[in-house]
This record gives sequence, C-alpha cells and structure tokens, in this order.
Amino acid sequence: MTTGKTVLGGCLAALVLVGGSIGVLSAQNGAQSDAAQLDELVLANHILTMNGVLDAYGHVSVRSARNPNHYFLARHLPAGVVTRADIMEYDLDSKPVNGDASGGYTERYIHGEIYRARPDVMAIVHCHPADLVAFSVSGVPLRPLIHTAGFLSDPVPVFEIRKAGGMTDMLIRNPALGRALAETLGNKPVILLRGHGAVVTGNTLHVAVGRAYFTVVNARVQQQAMQMGGKVTYLEPEEARKSGTQDGFERAWTLWKQEAEGK
Amino acid sequence: MTTGKTVLGGCLAALVLVGGSIGVLSAQNGAQSDAAQLDELVLANHILTMNGVLDAYGHVSVRSARNPNHYFLARHLPAGVVTRADIMEYDLDSKPVNGDASGGYTERYIHGEIYRARPDVMAIVHCHPADLVAFSVSGVPLRPLIHTAGFLSDPVPVFEIRKAGGMTDMLIRNPALGRALAETLGNKPVILLRGHGAVVTGNTLHVAVGRAYFTVVNARVQQQAMQMGGKVTYLEPEEARKSGTQDGFERAWTLWKQEAEGK
Amino acid sequence: MTTGKTVLGGCLAALVLVGGSIGVLSAQNGAQSDAAQLDELVLANHILTMNGVLDAYGHVSVRSARNPNHYFLARHLPAGVVTRADIMEYDLDSKPVNGDASGGYTERYIHGEIYRARPDVMAIVHCHPADLVAFSVSGVPLRPLIHTAGFLSDPVPVFEIRKAGGMTDMLIRNPALGRALAETLGNKPVILLRGHGAVVTGNTLHVAVGRAYFTVVNARVQQQAMQMGGKVTYLEPEEARKSGTQDGFERAWTLWKQEAEGK
Amino acid sequence: MTTGKTVLGGCLAALVLVGGSIGVLSAQNGAQSDAAQLDELVLANHILTMNGVLDAYGHVSVRSARNPNHYFLARHLPAGVVTRADIMEYDLDSKPVNGDASGGYTERYIHGEIYRARPDVMAIVHCHPADLVAFSVSGVPLRPLIHTAGFLSDPVPVFEIRKAGGMTDMLIRNPALGRALAETLGNKPVILLRGHGAVVTGNTLHVAVGRAYFTVVNARVQQQAMQMGGKVTYLEPEEARKSGTQDGFERAWTLWKQEAEGK
Repeated sequence: MTTGKTVLGGCLAALVLVGGSIGVLSAQNGAQSDAAQLDELVLANHILTMNGVLDAYGHVSVRSARNPNHYFLARHLPAGVVTRADIMEYDLDSKPVNGDASGGYTERYIHGEIYRARPDVMAIVHCHPADLVAFSVSGVPLRPLIHTAGFLSDPVPVFEIRKAGGMTDMLIRNPALGRALAETLGNKPVILLRGHGAVVTGNTLHVAVGRAYFTVVNARVQQQAMQMGGKVTYLEPEEARKSGTQDGFERAWTLWKQEAEGK
Repeated sequence: MTTGKTVLGGCLAALVLVGGSIGVLSAQNGAQSDAAQLDELVLANHILTMNGVLDAYGHVSVRSARNPNHYFLARHLPAGVVTRADIMEYDLDSKPVNGDASGGYTERYIHGEIYRARPDVMAIVHCHPADLVAFSVSGVPLRPLIHTAGFLSDPVPVFEIRKAGGMTDMLIRNPALGRALAETLGNKPVILLRGHGAVVTGNTLHVAVGRAYFTVVNARVQQQAMQMGGKVTYLEPEEARKSGTQDGFERAWTLWKQEAEGK
Repeated sequence: MTTGKTVLGGCLAALVLVGGSIGVLSAQNGAQSDAAQLDELVLANHILTMNGVLDAYGHVSVRSARNPNHYFLARHLPAGVVTRADIMEYDLDSKPVNGDASGGYTERYIHGEIYRARPDVMAIVHCHPADLVAFSVSGVPLRPLIHTAGFLSDPVPVFEIRKAGGMTDMLIRNPALGRALAETLGNKPVILLRGHGAVVTGNTLHVAVGRAYFTVVNARVQQQAMQMGGKVTYLEPEEARKSGTQDGFERAWTLWKQEAEGK
Repeated sequence: MTTGKTVLGGCLAALVLVGGSIGVLSAQNGAQSDAAQLDELVLANHILTMNGVLDAYGHVSVRSARNPNHYFLARHLPAGVVTRADIMEYDLDSKPVNGDASGGYTERYIHGEIYRARPDVMAIVHCHPADLVAFSVSGVPLRPLIHTAGFLSDPVPVFEIRKAGGMTDMLIRNPALGRALAETLGNKPVILLRGHGAVVTGNTLHVAVGRAYFTVVNARVQQQAMQMGGKVTYLEPEEARKSGTQDGFERAWTLWKQEAEGK
C-alpha cells in the first residue's frame, strides 16, 4: 500500500499519458455522441442500484468522450431515479459547465480530482455497500481472492480522512479532500474510505461498473472464507494480474442491461 | 449510557421546550393539512415494510402538526397494508381522540410517552429487524460506525424491561412501561429493547424513517467488522456529531417513495 | 430436553384429550366447510414458500375440522405450486381416504403420527430452512430469544434419526419413524431434525405458519448474537410463557395473505 | 480425496462404459428430439440464474441424446439471457460442429473433457456462487451435511490450478487444463475450483441443476453450523449414499420451471 506519489507527480504522469491513452480513446470514441454516452451513464446508475452497489447516496460518473477535461455526473438524486435530463457536465474543478453547482452532489470532488490525477480513468463509482464499509473499518486488508476481482491491488488502500481533514463529517466535500483521496488512490483501481464506502475506477464505464460489483463479491467471499478459520489462499500477484483484464465485464453488462431495462 | 434523568425532569424539559421548538414547528407546518401528513405517514408505513425495517408487527407514528399534544398512528394492522382510512389520532395518554382503543396497537404507549417526554421528537418508528434484536441481547454495544449513522449515541442504550416490569410478555403494554422506556431513552435518538426490537425517533418523519434504515445498516456493518477479528475503528464523537445531520434523509426518501409507489 | 414419554404414553394422553379439546374444537369449527379449510391450506402453502420457510420439498397440513381423525395435505408437489385440487385427505395411518398413496409425500407420516399423538395439534409444517438445519447439526441448542418466539421450548429438541432408525436416507418414510419423531417432540411445539429440517405445530393453521416463520427469525438472531462474542440474554421461562401466546399471528397472516395473493 | 486415476485410466473406463450406460441412455432418450433437449437446456440456464447459482459468467451444458460424443452449450452469453438460437453443438474436443469457436465460452473445455472422461455424466454446471468460492479458498473441506446433498463426496475435492498450470488467469482455457480438472474430479459428482467456483455433474440435466442448487445450500448451512462453535455432525457415508439418490430433483424442477417461466 504505497501511496507516496505526490499530486504533482500524478499530474505529470497524467500529462505524459494524455498524449497517449487519451488520444487513443478519443479516436475510438470520436463517433460517439454525448447522447449515447449519457444513455449509458443513466443505465449504469440503474444497474448499480439494482445490484445493491449504489444506495440512495452513491453516484457514478463518466469522463466526456468529447472533452477529456470534462465529466458527466447526475445532479443530487438517488442513482435509481436518474434520467438523462438529470445529467450535468462538470470541468475538472468540479464546476458545472452550464449553471450553478447548487444541484450537484456534495462529493463531486471525488470524481473531478481523480479524473485530473488519473488520465487513464474514464469512469468512477462511489458507493457504500455494507461488505465494503465493513472492511474499511475492520483493520483487516481487503485482498484479491476471486478470479473476477484480480484487478484489486493487494491490499486495497484505505483512505483515513482524519489524516487529511481531521475531524470531519466524513464527506469529500472540497477539492483538497478530493486531492488527498486521489493521492492515496495512487495508480490503483479501487480504494476504501474508512467508515464511509469505496471508490472504484475503470478505463471504461462498463469496467468501472463491473469492478464495483465484483469488489463487493470479493469482499463477501473473503469475509466468509476468513470466518471458516482455516488458512485462506489469495490470488498470487501473477494470477491477479493475468485474470484482472477479463472481458471488460461486457458479458455481465449484457445481463445487467437486460435486467435493468426489463424492470 | 447514563439515563439518570427522572421522568419528571424529562417532562419539565418538555414543557420548557414546548414554548420554543414546538411553536416553531407549528409555524413551519401550519399550512400542512392533516391529509398531507396522513399521506406521508401511509407512505412511511409502506417504505419501512419494503425495506425490511418493519415486519407485520412494527409501527410508525407522527406527531400532529396541528396539535402537538396529538399523534397519528395506524390501527392494529401490519404496516404494509395500512391505508389512510386506518390512521387514528391519539392524545399523549395514547387514548384515541375519536372512538375506543380496542383497534389500536397494544404498544401505542411507546409513542405517547416519548412524545410527552420529548417535544423535539416529531416521528417515531418501532421495529424488530434481526440485526437490531441481535444487538439487544448480545451484551455488545451498538456504536456509530458509518457516516450515515452518526446520529447514534455511543453506545446506543438498551431497555431491559425486567428492571421496569419484572417478568412480562416483553411488550410495552401500559403507560408505566412507556414512561420507563422514555426515561431510558433520555435525550437520545435510538434505543434497543432487549429481545424485542428498537425505537427510533426523529424531528421529522423522513428523519425517523431514514434513521431506522441506517441504524440497521450500521448494525450489519458492525457485526461484519467485528467478525473479521481486527481492531474496529468507530466514529469519533466529533465525526458522529458532524455527520449526524446529513440531509434529513431527503435524497433517500426520494428513492424510497418512487420504489414504494411503483410496487 | 426430556423425551422420555413412551409412544404408548403419548397415545393414552391423546385418547384422554380427544374427549375434551377435540370436541371443543369441532364445535367451534363446525360451521367451517372443507372448502374454506382447503383454501386456507393452499394459502398457507404459498405464504410459507413466499417467505422462504418452505422450499420445493417441505409441506404443511391441517387437521380436518369435520373429522379430527383425518388431515389434509397436498399430493407430492412443491408447496409453491399447490392448488385446491392437489389437496388429499388422509387418516391417521397416513392412508389417503380416497385413492392410493402413490401421489403422496414420502414423509406424510410426520403429520399422521403427530396428529395421533397430539390431539391439541391442528396444523403442522415440515420445512428445511438453512437457519434451522444449521442448528440441527451444530451441537448448540436453539433457545427462545425473541419476544415473537416465546412459544419455543428451552431448548428446542433435536431428533437424531440414527437412534430410531440407524443408517437411513434421513427421511421419515414409515409410521415407526413418525412415531419416534412424535415421541421426541413430546408436548413441545417445535422440533429440529438433524441434518434435515424442522417440524412446527400449532393449535390453528395460522399459529403453525407464524411459529414456523418466527422460529427461523429466532434462529437467525441467535446465530448473530452468539457470533458477537458477548453473553447472550435469552428469554426467561416466565417471559417465554407470557409472550408465547401473542395474537395467534393473526396480524402477520393479514400481511402475508395480501402479499401472497398479490403476487 | 484420491484423484490418482490417470487421464488414460479415466478414458479407458469411459470406453468400457460407453458400450453400457450410454447405449442404455440413448435407447431411453431416442425419441427425444434435439428441440426438446434444447428447450430444457434454455430453461436450466434461466432457473440457475434465477436461483443465484449462475451469475453472468457461469454456464450449463447437456450431452446430446442423439450423439453421446456431442454436447450442447450456449454461445458466450450470460445464462440469464440465453435463448434456443444461442445453443451450439460441440464435439468432445470442444470444437463447434457447425461454424467456428469464436463465439464460444472460453472455458468450454470443462464440459468437453468431463464428458470425455465420464460417460455417466449427462449434464454439467459451471458456477461461481460466493458460498462455494469461499470454501474453495478456505482450507476447510466442504462436506455432505444436509439430506438433500448426500450426493457430495466427503470431502468435496478442490482443483488447484497452480498444480496443473502454474500461474494462470485462473480459467480452464485449454484442453490440458480441462483434462487436469477432470482427473481431479475423478468419479465424484462435484468439484471446487480454488478462487474461482465449482463444477457440478449429473446423470440428467435436472440432477445437475438440483445438485448445483443444493451444493450451495449445503455450503451455507455448513458455514453457519461451523460458526456456532460446537461439534458439527456430518452425514455418515451410509446416510449420504442412501439419501444421495433422492427423486432426481424432479419436484424442485417443477417449482423452478413454474417460477422461471412466470417471470
């Protein structure tokens, strides 16, 4: 769990990468209109709610395919009720491109600061499932254990907001806390927030959604395995690395899309 | 867990506050008709059932916005089937304003005596979720652990009915037991009843419903965290105090309302 | 857990009681046609399935109100799909009154032998919920802990089929095993079957259904409470006795009926 | 857990049996058209998804009744969305009879190699339920404990892919890994895959589906029982053998079919 990279270092890395991966992604997604991206984001909101990953207070965002310095995120509504008309466009300072910020999620800085620090990240989920909150306060590390969660770092870092903000209301309610979170995240895909929840990133929206789902499954399996009292066998780093790519969770998305739209 | 305040002391405090907070609340809600308040109460019954907080035997009440010495509570039906025609109006002695008490919940004294002792309380949930009953008998304190349950006192008090009533059928079936419960509750928002369930209060109906829901989530997370065998990090008192206000659970209510009405 | 009463003793007690309680019950239910009783039994099948008490293999029966030496039980179908046309009438030897036994549940002797030994029993549920099977193999006694399960004996007896039948296929597939089960049950309301499930009795169909449901809840709460590692406070015998009568689970039946019929 | 039989030995045994049991099965099923078999397979996909046995990534196959050297398996879709048009026919090398393999599940070799090694096996489920994955990494053996899971070997073998393939992406993505898995399975009905899931076989499709379901139930009950801290009583080998045949899970299939088709 080394998170020693400074925010500046992260930004430099970002700039270097912008010329690479972002350009490639823009080329790939060039033909995709905002509309298509927003429809997918609405679906992601509903899928994550349907699967119990998001409750009334979590949120999911996607980086704009048109402008990598912007991202899309719903106004402060429960994910389960979000429609396309509720999606707002933000810059990396988490200021809404059109209109004021009063209708936005308090914690939108999670999204803006991670997008700034991590140009490889194209989508972000912030969630509070019990299985992950339990790990965040347990003093026991969450570790990659199942083949569909090989993407997890070993261990998954935990953000202790007291270090960055002292005694707070636990929320990432300003840019400084967002930057501190992004710094602890470093180059990892997932981070736990002590007593609060988790943040899951991906290089596509489907990947972020799939990772959020299987991070919860991994947490549940790890808790069950630990309670049996034997010696638990975790993924070896090479196994985790090899299994971490999977299929971009495209097969899962196919199922979830049908289930969410059929409701 | 100090509950040393006498019932008399609680009543005196109530009288003092009546001139203050109650007056303010009446002014705020003056325009709200009984009808609107009853519709919300019916919805609260359905939301709490849908979310597994209320089973066939729990109940939820709201203090009358028109008359702070009255409260509304369904007749003795499962919360999930309650309609507006089933709501009764009670005075603080838990006597129905119109008609006899034969159709009322046995435990209506929970509501009447807490409303009497706590003028700040505008809504009350009495529930029996397994996660809370487990804590009530465990000898292990329920403590605020997650950022959406910062309202919990540390620890949550437990009402041992044997102290007040000896060997009973476990029910709060008379005013004396209701007063003893209110006394143990003191100025706290939530109390567990040993081998029985919990009582959750709020200064609005939405707050009482949201607190009931997240008290259960906190209990589940705490159980999971404790079972992992490490050192659990609870909310610091200042964190709990700061995070305890939240948004009045208005965002959650938006989701639950849509889900409950869509069923 | 004393089950020293012989089968003969149980039968004698039954004969003595037949002249009393059965007569009273017949008088009370005299006006109730078979049709009404069968409709309720079908509903009980569906409610127990909906609530996860019955899986594809459990069953529920009711003693005939017209003839206390007969009982009603579905043919060998999953409870969730049973209709009124599927109900068969059996005598206390578990022989179908009309037609052959080939379409009956293998374990119908559970019902026949308990009805024979226990004239106070008017309805019987045989079920396999995981929470109860876990207790049946755990060596840890299931005990009354929650106020809606005060009817449980302390502890709940466990039927070890090896004592009565040696190495079997675990099923109560003949009258002798049924009698051995009834003997271990004695005058108690609920019994666990090791590695298999439970049998729950009641003096009405609603009571048997409600008891089955809350026996499962009690088991879940007890497991949770034990895992927290503190000293668990169980119901005192007097508390259990006083709370055990409840409301005949009529309020719960109201909810479950609406939920089952609305599906 | 002896898995010392060589693959060659397994193949020889298969050849010997082909002249016997397969012939018998073909005769029994001769009148069954592919269409009927495919309809059942689609239903099995949906039932296993509905019951939480299959997630987006598991699969279920059936040996062709017309040609015992062929099997049917969906193309790489989530089981929950599979229709008859999605079913492909494979030979025992897991090559599609008509068309290329690009649309097939990566892990189809699980099916082909087990069908090759085990002529008694007519259907195979590959699944990843949390309760089974937890056992696969726990170092604690899964053992037959409940009367509906007497078919389990004691203990259930665990496939450690590192022994056969070193550091992999955890998937059975080639014939050699499929053969190694089949060898560890030996003549047993169920095997766990470390950090991954399970494979369940049956001599009919209904049996494979029912066994998959009740293997999960057994795992859950065993975890619960172990956590209570007493001495757990498992099925004796004779009990397991006698109860293992059951009813071919036909009663459960009746329920699941109605539930799956009613959705």
